[in-house]
Amino acid sequence: MTNAPGSPHAQQALFIDDLKVGDRFTSGEHRIDAEQIREFAQQYDPQVFHLDAEAAKRTFFGELVASGWHTAAISMRLLVDGGMPIAGGLIGAGTSLEWPNPTRPGDVLHVESEVLAINPSRSRPDRGSVRVRSRTLNQRGEPVQIAETKVVAFRRPASR
Amino acid sequence: MTNAPGSPHAQQALFIDDLKVGDRFTSGEHRIDAEQIREFAQQYDPQVFHLDAEAAKRTFFGELVASGWHTAAISMRLLVDGGMPIAGGLIGAGTSLEWPNPTRPGDVLHVESEVLAINPSRSRPDRGSVRVRSRTLNQRGEPVQIAETKVVAFRRPASR
Repeated sequence: MTNAPGSPHAQQALFIDDLKVGDRFTSGEHRIDAEQIREFAQQYDPQVFHLDAEAAKRTFFGELVASGWHTAAISMRLLVDGGMPIAGGLIGAGTSLEWPNPTRPGDVLHVESEVLAINPSRSRPDRGSVRVRSRTLNQRGEPVQIAETKVVAFRRPASR
Repeated sequence: MTNAPGSPHAQQALFIDDLKVGDRFTSGEHRIDAEQIREFAQQYDPQVFHLDAEAAKRTFFGELVASGWHTAAISMRLLVDGGMPIAGGLIGAGTSLEWPNPTRPGDVLHVESEVLAINPSRSRPDRGSVRVRSRTLNQRGEPVQIAETKVVAFRRPASR
């Protein structure tokens, strides 16, 4: 199953029964600007390379870049807004993240996800977990985040 | 080296030369409330169990809980505010996260970090990476996030 933004499937919530390894999903887009980068950083990651373009030149990054946690939060929003339509919501038990490239002002991000594994629960027959790789890409197709997440998924309830 | 909040070491930026395996750091505290949980969720993770305490009762969580990304963002803020004083800033190349317990309204969070490994760079003698485990704990000592992060650290510049 492949889910393009705006496709009829975009808002159709999927149960674990509906998923198979290799299924792919594509989110909508989000454009980030310097104001968003600074606003997030002021609250959650007030380091100079996320706050001040001029001062950032003298840091590791050499320019204003988004907090990795901001990239993560935007990626989540894109997934919640139809980028990964799991029934019962997107509930992560754990995740691993890499940030191979920084997110910069003006970047247009989207998330491409792929189902890597499906594990029905042995102890709880109504649910299982799905391992998903989600790549957040900028407008040049460069990954700014690669996440592997274990997501909770539910079996389709028996029809009455 | 052990760093307690408010200790003379709290704001002293550390180079890779200053760190050793087993070093521990403790952040200050942050109290989260329902309003903060909803505000973050509206922007980055608008799912019902992060937005509406009443409707959340009929979900997986059974109550209003913070987005895991909100817990991650608060943890970062606590680390930046002296919880992990690395010279040059807290720059993560990658991380793995688990959320063993949800963060709930009224929780008071702090972060305890431990240096797991120190790896000087072979190709770039001015820097290296430090592997850190950071546990975000609530007021009952229960972990709401366990993170293992690869942080960039720099060698102390030669004195002139």
